[in-house]
Parts: sequence; structure tokens; C-alpha cells
Amino acid sequence: VKFYEGLAAARGEKKADFLLKNGRIVDVFSGEIFKGDIAVSGGRILGFGDYQAEQVLDLENRIAAPGFIDAHVHIESAMVGIPRYAAAVMPRGTTSVVIDPHEIANVLGNEGIRYMIRSSKASPLGVHVMVPSCVPATHLETSGSALSVKDIKDWMGRPGIVGLAEMMNFPGVVNGDKKILAKLEAASGRVRDGHAPGLSGKSLNTYVFAGIGSDHECFTLEEAGEKVRLGMMVFIREGTAAKNLRTLLPVVNPMNQDRFAFCTDDRHPFDLLREGHIDFMVREAVRQGMNPVTAVRLASFNAARYFRLPETGAIAPGYHADIAVFDDFESVAVKWVMKNGCVVAQDGKMLVQGGGKPEPRPKNTIRMKPFKKEDLEVRAAGPVRVIGLIPDQIVTKALVLEPEIREGKAVSSPAKDMLKLIVAERHKATGNLGIGFVCGFGLKRGALASSVAHDSHNIIAVGVDDEDILLAVRNVAAMHGGLAAAAGGQVLEKLPLPIAGLMSPEPMEEVQHRIQSLNRSAAGLGCVLKDPFMQLSFLALPVIPELKLTDRGLVDLSRFDFVPLNAEAPAG
Amino acid sequence: VKFYEGLAAARGEKKADFLLKNGRIVDVFSGEIFKGDIAVSGGRILGFGDYQAEQVLDLENRIAAPGFIDAHVHIESAMVGIPRYAAAVMPRGTTSVVIDPHEIANVLGNEGIRYMIRSSKASPLGVHVMVPSCVPATHLETSGSALSVKDIKDWMGRPGIVGLAEMMNFPGVVNGDKKILAKLEAASGRVRDGHAPGLSGKSLNTYVFAGIGSDHECFTLEEAGEKVRLGMMVFIREGTAAKNLRTLLPVVNPMNQDRFAFCTDDRHPFDLLREGHIDFMVREAVRQGMNPVTAVRLASFNAARYFRLPETGAIAPGYHADIAVFDDFESVAVKWVMKNGCVVAQDGKMLVQGGGKPEPRPKNTIRMKPFKKEDLEVRAAGPVRVIGLIPDQIVTKALVLEPEIREGKAVSSPAKDMLKLIVAERHKATGNLGIGFVCGFGLKRGALASSVAHDSHNIIAVGVDDEDILLAVRNVAAMHGGLAAAAGGQVLEKLPLPIAGLMSPEPMEEVQHRIQSLNRSAAGLGCVLKDPFMQLSFLALPVIPELKLTDRGLVDLSRFDFVPLNAEAPAG
Repeated sequence: VKFYEGLAAARGEKKADFLLKNGRIVDVFSGEIFKGDIAVSGGRILGFGDYQAEQVLDLENRIAAPGFIDAHVHIESAMVGIPRYAAAVMPRGTTSVVIDPHEIANVLGNEGIRYMIRSSKASPLGVHVMVPSCVPATHLETSGSALSVKDIKDWMGRPGIVGLAEMMNFPGVVNGDKKILAKLEAASGRVRDGHAPGLSGKSLNTYVFAGIGSDHECFTLEEAGEKVRLGMMVFIREGTAAKNLRTLLPVVNPMNQDRFAFCTDDRHPFDLLREGHIDFMVREAVRQGMNPVTAVRLASFNAARYFRLPETGAIAPGYHADIAVFDDFESVAVKWVMKNGCVVAQDGKMLVQGGGKPEPRPKNTIRMKPFKKEDLEVRAAGPVRVIGLIPDQIVTKALVLEPEIREGKAVSSPAKDMLKLIVAERHKATGNLGIGFVCGFGLKRGALASSVAHDSHNIIAVGVDDEDILLAVRNVAAMHGGLAAAAGGQVLEKLPLPIAGLMSPEPMEEVQHRIQSLNRSAAGLGCVLKDPFMQLSFLALPVIPELKLTDRGLVDLSRFDFVPLNAEAPAG
Repeated sequence: VKFYEGLAAARGEKKADFLLKNGRIVDVFSGEIFKGDIAVSGGRILGFGDYQAEQVLDLENRIAAPGFIDAHVHIESAMVGIPRYAAAVMPRGTTSVVIDPHEIANVLGNEGIRYMIRSSKASPLGVHVMVPSCVPATHLETSGSALSVKDIKDWMGRPGIVGLAEMMNFPGVVNGDKKILAKLEAASGRVRDGHAPGLSGKSLNTYVFAGIGSDHECFTLEEAGEKVRLGMMVFIREGTAAKNLRTLLPVVNPMNQDRFAFCTDDRHPFDLLREGHIDFMVREAVRQGMNPVTAVRLASFNAARYFRLPETGAIAPGYHADIAVFDDFESVAVKWVMKNGCVVAQDGKMLVQGGGKPEPRPKNTIRMKPFKKEDLEVRAAGPVRVIGLIPDQIVTKALVLEPEIREGKAVSSPAKDMLKLIVAERHKATGNLGIGFVCGFGLKRGALASSVAHDSHNIIAVGVDDEDILLAVRNVAAMHGGLAAAAGGQVLEKLPLPIAGLMSPEPMEEVQHRIQSLNRSAAGLGCVLKDPFMQLSFLALPVIPELKLTDRGLVDLSRFDFVPLNAEAPAG
């Protein structure tokens, strides 16, 4: 019935629901921007022309573009649940996201993916799900769950599932690891995203031959050029830790413009609230000289087509009425956002309350064996391996230093800026506890702890005092996950992240406010880092060189294996 | 196993099957033409680079482009079966075709489609099938079969089926005819081709809103521009009756270049053998100034992507090794053609024998009630309606003229060039016999008959003498279909088309030779038309104005209904 009514409305025999009048319409097909009116009914675009409508919205010569699409995003990195995320990005013109729920899947497995799908229903944002391909990320850590080949296969048949998310194990693909290829096979015929920083030549040929369709890890023009040549879609990324937009813009030209899309990958509240989301990328791309229609293509249609999202990413008859209306390409100041034919945001505010309908939150995911101060003690005599942190980078240096020894035990030394770092397993109450040392935080007292610790998201903590480390960790656990700063037996500030220990149910502004307060607390303890919790969160990620710490011990990335803390002991 | 061998070959650890060396490679993704070597194994492209291979082919700086794709073709119009068609077009660089077996489906229904699929296996040509949407074309004629909504639905699940072929009943779609929309619905989620000459504005909005994705009937730049703007793929057609290439080329520009593809629709042996196939369109487009990579995109990747042909239409890792190697863009002189990793043609000749393996041909499709000379008699006194033929066009004029009366019967008059035209039902032996008159053939004696008569393919004949008409028709029937010219009780020339009365199992050159001979015979009988059998074949098509003749009578297209021959009788 709705379809027949749509047809009658398209013919002009029945009033349309909406007429968006006097727009400058961005046509991703013809490459034109033309003045006109857009008719909408039943959530779909009817076409252009002089239509009668129930509601008329005068765009006053503003730009009407297809709603923006983020081609690859881990929403968990924004530290809020989907409805709150939607409330932050939709007023900026984003109407759809392609998510890789890799973080929550490391905590909760299939249930985490189901939760993300379920909670996406509580907001108008179009959430398309890629099934994580690498859970757990390595065998060197304890994650909350694992996704098997069978899990992946089962997901592929379900609604809302678009394909297989970034295949980070590119050496496994290239070398024909059967377990890895079985995952690709499980998503056969579907979109399979890649992640292959620096891969080129025959290795890249092999990776693409295996069926990988995209990459969002290009750091140079040459790398992007080669990947496009081989048929990959290149997602230009502007995240928080990795910002590639300005570097990569010059690779886009009229001949290859349909091979790129925009994505944010991991973008934290600070950047989302200050600079924006995909709107920021459009604004910046046009400022750097990109044709505005090309910029809109990268921000909408190209991703929709690559991911085969039906009738999405363009303003044309039959397409979902997902439209971003903004003043001009200089500001990309979004006035209205329409999703499926409803005006959902205006002047930077959601009109539809995301998160208004409470979705059942996953139960507490923290399961820890209690440990006591003595468990944190480290017997040592000689030099130890130390993680050398580099500000604003996720790579580290592998150092060897003499620790401060007290009563036969190596302890934190604020003087040397060599602090105790622990990773406590928190999924299965194994009691696993990795202990090491890190240089670079600058803390003079107290401790910081977090349940955001890529990719397994155990609890990571750094501190001067073992009591404060314990206090911070226990507080994180008591909040069902989150961030905490403690000193002198007091908790100074904390941010609860009760959704899988990764996300808050509160608005993004509130989360950002707390993070700033936490950062100030850390600075008050002597911390020299701009974003200490973010840096902390990457110290447990054993796929990034050179030295990392998991719940099972120190990992040397040059060997991709464990090494003892004692630098003079044989390395296994 | 094959896949793992492919991976090892891509890594360079195992010899590739083929290395195409020293090519100028057309990259449809990056828009570049670069010098390089292409490695191929197991029918797939491995990548570019310095590979060891079992066989090395030195391209000597020739162009290596993705094999050409015809986006919409009725192979029946080439009057040969698929293996013979493949043998004619593959040496010209065509490696895939998207067929609409509309003609054979009008004769044989589902069995006709099955036959086309079956017979395509006897050649290396990639044959992708769109299921005809309009069989029969109208209710004003008797076809051999009908395709129901259920038939269409059943086809959609089967391998090799791409979608629903051109929806010619655009008024039905626009006006919401439930039967017509049910056909679109039966192909929901699949590609659904359009056919909407001249449609624009709200009607075009409605047609696109209903789910139609393409059009190949654009005759002007404005029409193509509007259709692209609404998101349609525009297939630029260069057939035999309709040639739109030169007119439409200027509409393609760098911003909209991915919204076009090349097709031939109906292209007869004469044009295919003389000018070529898609190779001709590439050559002509480049000659008119189109960027060569853009021309190749229209000739390959754009169609493959629109039709979602997996891994087809580009030279990149994992893609089918379908490659056309030609000297340069001036000549598009094709040297080698590779299909799925095999060199199938060289220097204009097939290396693999298409048609070598005999496929079971459909049984004789001619089932007629015998009729005799008296059945052809027409009682008339006053003026009659006459079809006014226009040379080289498929539209006709509706005329009213005084016939030559002999013994109370209207007869052919060579003096007035007003000849008897008959359409005899030949599928179900109904005995239906439509009789009318036509101006424009110029025959002074004899008769021409054909079982190619769009869209129902009954037997159509024109002639001066009823005996000769009968003789020609009987000869067509005796050949199980075909073309015949007769005069003075003798058959002068004939072409058997025993495959459904539409196609020959002989090589295309042989068919073309016979057609030329038939045309010479017609000319010898006084015929003034260049291609009398082609013109004859459109006189029974009751969807093209102004006056047509079916087995059930004269059809006036201004009323889309029957009208009596007697011009003074009330029009029903």
C-alpha cells in the first residue's frame, strides 16, 4: 500500500509528505549542483519538481546533499552508546555509519554485536554492521570472547549485516593461513574490509587476490595510489590517533574519485565535539580544493555503493530520504538533517531523542579474581625491560633500565619516570596479572586505571604507589568499567563506562567533560601527557611495536612473543 | 586447492599460468594507462609485476583492457545461436554480454530462456541473463508463450540470472498497474532494466521510484542528462535500427562517467561484421574525443558493476582474466582476447571452436493450421486502412487509400505500390490470419515472408501475388522458420532459421551472405528498400505507432486497439 501511495505521490496525484524547496541539490550521479525542489513520501525521495506537499520546508538556497556516511567506525572509541553517538553526529549531517564492533566483541563476543544492533534501534541513525574478523586480536592476551568461523558464517545471513570487518591479520592472509582464510571464506560474496598498513607489491596483490576490498590504513599518496590501482576502495581516515585526511586528499582526482570514501575509524569525543565528524572532512576537503560534489561522493554515495547499502547515499527517486542541509561548502554548517523522511536534527540539536527509549544494557562484564597489594610486588635485582612511551603515538620503544629496588623488589620511581604498569585480566576471573614498567607518564604520585585497553580490554593501570593502583583498579571494577584517577588513598575523579567497560550511557558532552576532569587530575599528579588515558589504552595492544604488556606478560613485537621482565633472563 | 595455488602464485612462490608482458594496461580504477606485466593463474588475474610464468605472451606495447561487455543485447537479432554469435564478437574483444532473450521467450517461454543458457555453455563467452519482463508484449497478438510473475520469481534464484530485463510497459509502471508492478516485485533486490523513450518529469520520477535502474532508449542529450540525474544508468546504444552513439557521446564527462555503459540492443550481422561490436563503440568514442580510459569503462567495468557481475570488468587481482589486447585506441585492432585466463581469439579468429559441441536445438516451433489461397481474399468496396512504411524507420504512417478491386476483392496493386500484407499465427495452430495492406515496398511481383516478426514472431509476408505469398509462407514453415523470397511459383532464395524461427546454427558470415542474396532477390522483384526483411519484421510490432498488423488484425496505436480494414466501418 505504502508503495502504491508513493507511486501516486511521485505522479503528483497525491500530496507528498514533504517538499524541500529552493535547495541547491548535490547530484552524486550527474556531478551537478542544481537549484530545485525535492519531494519526499513514506521515507523515500520521490523526485525533483513542483509537487504539492503536506509540509514545505524552504531551504533558502542552502545545499541539500545526501546524508553523510562513515565508512568504517568503532563507535566504542567515542565512549558512548549508539543513541548518544547518534545524538552527537546526526546534527552534523551523518545519517549512516558502517560499524565494526570489534571492541565490544572482544569483551562480549556475539552478544556484544547483538547489543550494538539492538541499541541502534533506539536512534534514527542508520547502523550497518561489519562482523569483526579478528577477535581475539592475538593469542598473547585473554579476551572476553572469541568469534569463530562459524560465528562469522552465521552472522552473514542476518539483516543489517554488511560483511566482514577489517582483516587485520594481513600476514596470515598473504601467507595462506587456513584459519584466517576460512574467515574470509565464511563471508564469501560479501564485502570484506582490509587493514594493511604499508603492504605493497606481490604481498598486496595476494591480499587483494584473497578477496579484500578496502583499506583505511594508507599513510602516503603512493600507498593509496597502489591500492586504488589494484581495485581497493581506499577509505580516507580522520580519527583521533590517526589523521590521514590532509595527506591523502591530493590522491583523489576526477578519474579515480569513485574509489574513495571517508571514515573516522577511532575518533574520540574531543575531536567529534570540537571539529566534527564527516562534515569536518567535507569542509576540509573542499577547503583544500576538492570539487564539492566529489567531496560529497566520498562522504556518502561511494561508501553506500561499496557496501551495497540499498537505495542509500544519493538524492534520487526511490532512495531513502537521508539528507543533510547546510549553508555552504565553506562552513558545512548543518541546518537540518533528514533521515528516512523525518527531520531528526536542526541547528545542531537532535529533535528526536536518541537514548530516550532505554535498551537493555549488557550485565556487568567485569569478572576479576580479587588481588591484594602483595600480588603487585616484583622481585628484581638487575636491569628490566621497560616500555618507552612516545607522546601521541601508539608505537612504543623497548627499553632496558635499572629499576629502583626496595627490599629486593622493583618499585615505581618518579625520579626516573619509570612507573609500574599492570594489566589485570577482567573477563574470566583467571587472576592473570601482567606487571611491567613504563617510562613517559611523568606521574609523581597516585595512579590511573582504565578498562579501555585495546584490544582485549582488560584493566590497565599505571601508578607510583601500589595502594593507589589497587584503589584505581578496584574503582574501575566497581563502576562495571571505566576510567579512574586515584592518589593518597582517594579517588580523585572517575568516568563510569558500564556498557561492556567501554561506553557510557550518558551524553557525549558529559563524557568529554569527565575526561577533561580526569586529564586535569592526572596533570595534577604530575602527568606530562595530553591524553594519558588514551595512551594507556594502547599499551596493552600486542600488534603494535615495540614492547607491550598484556594480562599474560610483556610482549616483544620483534618476536611476536612473550619476554621476561628481567632483561638478563633468556627470552623464552 | 585452486585458491591456495592462486595465493602462492600471487606471492610469486609458484609459477603463474600466464604472464602478459609489456602491456599498456588500462586501469579502470585509477583511470591510468601504465606500462606493466599482468600475471594470470587459474583463470584469475594475480596482479602486476615481475612474475615467473608457464607461458609468456609479449604484448609489444599493445593496450591491455578489460574484455568488453555488451550491457543489453537481444542475441536473436544477430540471427545466429550463441556459439556463432560468440565466434563473431569475441575476436573483437567482447568477453561478456548481458542478454535479454525476449524474442525466443515470445516463441518458447521458459524453455527458450533455458535453451539460451544451455547453448551459452558451448562457447567461452560470458552470458549473463536478464529475464524478459514483457512476454507477450501486448494482448493484441498471439505469442508462443507467456512469462508469468511466478516464472520471473522462479528465475531470480537461479545461477547466471542477473535481473529483470527492460520493462517496456512504462505506462503500466507509471500508472501503478498491479500486474506490471508484481513483475518488478518478483525481481525485488535485483537489477531491473528500463526502456522508456522520451519519458521525463514526474512520469520519469515515478518510473525510477518504482525501481527501474537503467535506460537504453535515450535519443537526445537532454533525455540522457535527466535520466542520469535521477540515478539511472544510461546505456548508450549502437544497434542496427537505432544508432545513438554519436548523438549521446557529448553527455559523458569526468563527473558522470560512471553512469554510462555501451550496448547494442538489436544489431544485425551486417553491422556486426562490417563495423564491429563494442570495439566499434570504443573506437568511435575515442575518435570523438572521449578519454580512452573512460571509453573502456563504458565498455566494461561500468556494466559489470551495475549488473553486479562478480569480479568482472577490470584488470586487478582476483578478477576474471578477461582481457582484450589491441594495437591502439585509433584502430582498436584486437590482437588477442583472453577469457577466464585462456587465449580464445587471435587476429580476428576464434582459437576455441564455438559451436563445436552441438547443443540440443529446440524442436520445430512452427505449428500452423494450413490455409489456402481463398483464405487470403479480402472483400472490400470502399477505402481501406493502409500501413505507410517509412524507409529505415520502425514507425509507420496510418494511411487511408482506395484499393484496387478485382471481382469484389481488394488485391495488391504494384502500380499504386499498395501490397497485401499478412500475419499468420504460427505457434498454436489457431488459424489466426491478419490481412492488411502496406505502401512502400515497391515489389512488382513475387512475395517475401519471414518468421522474424517482432515481438510475437508469427509469420509475416508481403507480396503482389497470393500464390507467391502462400509459397513463401509455406517455405518458411517448411524450414522450421526463416526468410524466403518467391516469385512465379518459384522460391528464389531462402535462409533457414530453425532455432525458434529466429536463429541459424550456421556461422554469421554465412547468414549474412544469405541475407544479401535475399535482398538482391527482393531488389530483382522491384523492392526499393535497403533491408526489406528487417522492415517487414517491425510491421507486426503493435507498440510502435501508427498502424501495425498482428495475427489478430490491424492495430491503431493512437487507440492501442484493433481497427477494421474498411476505413468507413466504425472503429470498434
